[in-house]
Parts: sequence; C-alpha cells; structure tokens
Amino acid sequence: MTSTALLTDRYELTMLDAALRDGTGHRRSVFEVFSRRLSGGRRYGVLAGTGRVLDAVTRFRFGGPELEWLAAEHVVSPATIDWLADYRFSGSISGYREGELYFPNSPVLTVEGSFAEAVILETLILSVLNADSAIATAAARMVSAAHGRPLAEMGSRRTQERAAVSAARAAWIAGFAATSNLEAGRRWGVPTMGTAAHAFTLLHDSEEEAFRAQIEAMGADTTLLVDTYDVMSAVETAVRLAGPELGAVRIDSGDLPVVVQAVRARLDELGATGTRITVTNDLDEYAIAGLAASSVDSYGAGTRLVGGSGHPTAGFVFKLVERADDDGAMRPVAKKSVEKAGSGGRKWAFRRLEDGVAVEERVVVADDEPTLADARALVVPLVTAGTPDPAHVGVEGVRNAREHHARVLAELPPDAMRLSGGDTAIPTVLR
Amino acid sequence: MTSTALLTDRYELTMLDAALRDGTGHRRSVFEVFSRRLSGGRRYGVLAGTGRVLDAVTRFRFGGPELEWLAAEHVVSPATIDWLADYRFSGSISGYREGELYFPNSPVLTVEGSFAEAVILETLILSVLNADSAIATAAARMVSAAHGRPLAEMGSRRTQERAAVSAARAAWIAGFAATSNLEAGRRWGVPTMGTAAHAFTLLHDSEEEAFRAQIEAMGADTTLLVDTYDVMSAVETAVRLAGPELGAVRIDSGDLPVVVQAVRARLDELGATGTRITVTNDLDEYAIAGLAASSVDSYGAGTRLVGGSGHPTAGFVFKLVERADDDGAMRPVAKKSVEKAGSGGRKWAFRRLEDGVAVEERVVVADDEPTLADARALVVPLVTAGTPDPAHVGVEGVRNAREHHARVLAELPPDAMRLSGGDTAIPTVLR
Repeated sequence: MTSTALLTDRYELTMLDAALRDGTGHRRSVFEVFSRRLSGGRRYGVLAGTGRVLDAVTRFRFGGPELEWLAAEHVVSPATIDWLADYRFSGSISGYREGELYFPNSPVLTVEGSFAEAVILETLILSVLNADSAIATAAARMVSAAHGRPLAEMGSRRTQERAAVSAARAAWIAGFAATSNLEAGRRWGVPTMGTAAHAFTLLHDSEEEAFRAQIEAMGADTTLLVDTYDVMSAVETAVRLAGPELGAVRIDSGDLPVVVQAVRARLDELGATGTRITVTNDLDEYAIAGLAASSVDSYGAGTRLVGGSGHPTAGFVFKLVERADDDGAMRPVAKKSVEKAGSGGRKWAFRRLEDGVAVEERVVVADDEPTLADARALVVPLVTAGTPDPAHVGVEGVRNAREHHARVLAELPPDAMRLSGGDTAIPTVLR
Repeated sequence: MTSTALLTDRYELTMLDAALRDGTGHRRSVFEVFSRRLSGGRRYGVLAGTGRVLDAVTRFRFGGPELEWLAAEHVVSPATIDWLADYRFSGSISGYREGELYFPNSPVLTVEGSFAEAVILETLILSVLNADSAIATAAARMVSAAHGRPLAEMGSRRTQERAAVSAARAAWIAGFAATSNLEAGRRWGVPTMGTAAHAFTLLHDSEEEAFRAQIEAMGADTTLLVDTYDVMSAVETAVRLAGPELGAVRIDSGDLPVVVQAVRARLDELGATGTRITVTNDLDEYAIAGLAASSVDSYGAGTRLVGGSGHPTAGFVFKLVERADDDGAMRPVAKKSVEKAGSGGRKWAFRRLEDGVAVEERVVVADDEPTLADARALVVPLVTAGTPDPAHVGVEGVRNAREHHARVLAELPPDAMRLSGGDTAIPTVLR
C-alpha cells in the first residue's frame, strides 16, 4: 500500500505542528470543498475523483520513510512526528456523489474532524478533485458534442504518466466509451482499445505487409490506420486484404470532413458498407461538433481532453467554514479578503427540479440536513468514522459514478448542452 | 519497485503481438523523440523528465498482476505473454541532457533496440517528457521574468497528485528556488517551503492568537499570511508580535502592485525594513513581469505553472526513423501524410555558438556521430545495453540537470528572453 502522506504541501504540516503545540489542533472543524466559479463560462461542472479521494485518505499514513525524512528535514517537531506515526483519519466525509454535476459554490465535499486530522488532507484532496473534475467536465462536453457516437480517450502520452490513468477514469465516468490506457483498464475496469500506430506500417516493407500482419494477428474486424502514405490507396489495400468484414479505418491527419467523405464513398464503392471510420486528430468538443454532419462513426480524443480542453484544473478550494470555540460551541468562519471572500457554516445542497428538469442549485447553511420538497438531496455520507462507504470506492465506485452521471445529466435543461461560454445551466441560491 | 509496464497504450502491445508473430518485431529499430513546433510561439523549450524516463524504463517489467490481467483480457497472445514475462529493455538510449534547451525538430531522445523492445516504451516516454518539459518551459519563462527574485512552486493542489511531484521537480530544474511539495523534497531533493494558510488564522479566536502561535512554533523569521481579514492591521499585528526580525509577510489576494507598495511602506515605518514580501496569487510569467517595479521579494507560482502556463503538454512525438530490412541493412523511414510528415534517419544535434552565443541548432542525419567545429554536441549516451548512466538519474541527475540548464540558458541571445510569442531564439537547420 503506497503511502499518500507526502503528497502534501509543507504548510499543512507546519500548521499542524503549531496547532498541536497551542492546543487548537483539537478543535472540531468543518472544511468545505467548493469552486467559486466554473472555468471558461462552462454551463456545468462534472465532479470526478471522489472515489480516488476516499482511497487516498485510507492510504494517508506516515510510515518509516516518511517520518524519517520529516524528522531529518525538521519539518515538524518530534512531538508532531509521534502524532503523525499514529495518524489515521477518524472523522467523516460527506459530499456529492462522484459523477454528479456541480455549479459555483456547490459544496461538493465536506470534511469533519479535528482541525489537525482534517487540515493535512487539504492538498491531496484538492489535487485529486481538481484534476479529475477538469477532465470529466471537458469529457462530458465532448460526449454531448458527439451526439451518441462513441468516444475513446487516448491522451496518455500528453499528460503525466500517473495522471494519464486518472484521466482515463474521469473520461469514462463522464461518458467516454473506452480508453487506450491499460492501467486504467486493470485498476478501474475501464474498457481498453487500440490496434496499431504508424510505426507498425513503417516497420514493414510495405503497407500491404503491415495490414496483412495486423489482420492475421487481430482478425478482419480490426481497425487499420490508413494515413501513413496515401489514404485512398490504403483504404483499397485494406478492403482487398480484409474483405468487407474490415472493422474500421482510422484517420489521424488531414482536413477531416473532406477526407472522411472521400473514404466513406470509397469504402461503400468497395462494398465495405459496414466498415466504420474513426478519427483521432487533436479533437476537442468544437472539432467534434464540426464533424456532426460527417460520416464519422467514432472519435478518439487525446491532447485536448487530458488538458481539460483549455482548463486543466477545476478551481476547487478547501476552506475552513466552521470550528469549535474553547467551550465546544461551533462557530462559522470565513476569510474576508478581496475577491476570495468565503461563506461560513456547514452546508447542505439540493437540486430543485420542476417536471423532472433541474431549475436551481439550493445551498443551505445548517448544522443538520434540512428537507426540501421537489428537490434531490445532493450530499451523501462518504466516510463515517474513518471508514469509506464501499459503494463509492474501487471499480464499483467508478461504475456507480458513470451511471449516476448519465442520470443527472439528463435532468439538465437542453440549453445546458450549448458549447459556447455563458451563464451556468442553473443558478446557485445560498439560503 | 512499482511496475510502470501498464502505463502504456493498448496499441503498443497489440503492435508488439503482431510484430512478434510475423518476425518483424526483431528488426533493429531507431525511434526518435522530437517536437514539430514549440507551443504558443515560445522562443525555446526546456527538456525535462529524462531522468524520470530512465528510471521508468528500469521499472518497465511485467510481473504477475500485469501478466494475469493482460492474459485475462486477451490483449495479446499467450506467446507474447511469455515474451513480456522476460522483458527487460536491453537497447540503448541517447539524447539531450536533462535541462537542455530544445527547438523544433531537436532530436531530444533516441531509442535503439529491436522494434519489439523499443516500441512498447513509446507511451511512457512521451507521458514523462511531454508533461515535465511543458512545466520546465513555463517555469523558465517565469524565472526570467522574475529577474533574480526567487520563485517557489506551489501548484500541487492544481494538478493530479503524482503529477504534482514531477511538476515540482521540473520547476526546480528550470530555476525555481523551492517547492511546497513534500514528496518532491524526499524523492528528488528539491528544497521545500511553506508556513501557514488562511485556515490557521480562522482556527484561532483572533489573528493575533494565530500569529503568536505560529511565531512560537516557527520563530520570528517565519512568513505570516496577512490577508485573511484586513492586510494593514495584520501587518501591524505581525510586526508588533515578531518584532523587526519578522521574516516575511505573504499576500495572496488583491491588486498586488498597490497592496505591495502599501505593505512595504508600513513595514518600513514600523522598522521592519528587513521583512520580505512574498506574493502568491495565480501568478504567471506576465503577472510576474508586471510586478518588476514593485517591492516584491519572492513569488509563489501554482495554478499557471503546473498548467504549463496555457500549454500543458510539450508536443513531443515518438517516431520510427530507421529500421532494418530482412538482410539487416538499416533503412530510414518516415510517415508521408499531410501536416505530420517526418524526416527519416538517425540524427545527431549540435548547438552552434559564435562568441559564446547560440546561433543555430544543427541537426545532422548520420549513422555515427560527426564532429562539428564551434559547436556543442547535444546528444549524449543515457542508457547503454539497458543500463542507465548514474549521472542522469535520481537526485544526482536532478542536480546535474539544474546546473546544466542554468549554463545553457546563458548561451541564448538576450532576445530569447522576450515573453511575447514569435520565432524561436535560434533556427533549426537539418543537414
């Protein structure tokens, strides 16, 4: 079990050290994760990473290597080293289900415990949620732009090697059909896909030999990459070798609408009417939307997807919103400074629906969860007394998140699917 | 030793399977990593990640969990499963030193071996180099914009949790002074920094109590965060409690040039003339340049840095440029398609200097390394017969990369430091 404990900003531990020293570290505290706005005028955000947060919190333990390094570097005092050696998060975490939509000021995650045990999770929780939600949000836009045609995530090479695995997971939750990333398949149960690159064609003495080798290894229903030399010749060679059972051809360059039209016509002339066309050239939601009228059967999205389509982080912050006084009474707290003022108090959230269509994100400050008519409660328990709910973690958590996402996306008004920047699909009302 | 073997696109393994089956997998092959252009009209790129590539290649082994999953999913044939079980890269890797500058078509990494053993490294090598170089390039621009004032990397929360560690490493190589990320300190020897967040102030009954607790734990030369409530009152409280020995104040919001000027004046009035001012509000190279005339002593950069300042990936590709025929003769190969045509043949590179100033990136196609007068040879051996050179890996590799970067950056013409988009600092000439 790899420790996640040092995936942390130094100031979390120096704050911890000072708070343990003066006794305030034991004050009961409530931290809230929210985003002040949606990047790029997006209409909605897609929360992803929750299951990975719960897993990472479970592995947030300080073992020998971590403690020795912290002691040698004098990051914290010896008393705090002892405290960290026994550390295990024993508080509670509640929040939006993974895959849920969010809007400005949606309280997507709430962490409750002592200040000491909760504050040190800040960096790790934000790293996971900011990265995964940025990609899930971009992915959801691409899925809606594709109007039902399947999308494969293939951006592993365009993002850090471990980030690639979580990117594939996030895209799958937001409706992608598959990934190229094998570890995402093994770790999270995401279907994997892929057949061959240009190097395979160049390795062989001719394109024909390469295609023949691929068909022998993978069968006639494989996907042949047809743009290493001349696309139309490659299409002819492909159908000649594989027959009309050829699964698909992939096009990775050129002016796609024009090339796709020519390839479709030639495939049909050759009798390969069932052979599909997949395109994979730096696609984002706008390029995908621009191919709506083309005979494309599926898309591969890489660079732009794993970069959050221009917005690689979701903008979530982790803020102390309530903490105990010396007498134990809870007190709402908030920063007051320019442009980053917060709103104190423990919060709950509801999505109000009219005739099954979402109309409002209602956020309510209250100690205990209120009830609201005609509204879906958004905050659910995720971790109780340090133990994660199994429905939200591992492969099962990912599957549930994907299903939940599809369900709640269907609640949005049709206008929410516009790709242009503008107002959020529904307003957030804080009561 | 965590395996890196499944941090791979599925098509690498399906190509491998087909190439082993028809015998072409044993053809001697040369793969080259290069970038067709620099993102965003940048003047130069900074190569980072090489040491992590060498480490990742060493850990590219298929153990029980990987092989069982590949077999169960039928990704490859049983014969290929056996081949993977024995896999260990035995070829050679050469390339630019980590920290080196690069330009369009610079051959930054060359991998030689059988097609089979080399092709399956593609995804992993690109993931590492694309992510790390994007961040190092953005970091170098911020460093030059800061004109000698130190910069701290603090973007962990705005990128995936493991990507955060490599981001801190890349920024350090490109001249940053420190990071907030503890694991980057432990794993790569990057100096770490950080004191407290707003939550620490909000935890206490007053700002004064928070500051007192921090000074008791960390000493008077700590950095106090002064923008939780009212900046000027906080500055007064800070100096009253810490005295003129107060190390620094940190400002994380507001109109920085205005606030900084007022804070500097107040600190000086209070006699805290040695107290430094650090600012940390979503800075990029342009915001840093805009603070050149302000009394800022150091900067913290996060969100924009780890997002590559708008360009989160470096655009490196991994292309087969030469491979053996059946008779063993090596043959240059290249893709011919629209907009992505390559240039075949094994390449070497030199930086031509005149009076110590770089004037040209000279790339030469040749089997063996030529010599060139008045030029620095850029390609060095990194892995020989599967074994990495220790000077390029681990903590020593990072230290060497940082030193090398500073040295070669100083060779660029002054014009190269312009932040605006435009031509590269020197042209690449392919002979």
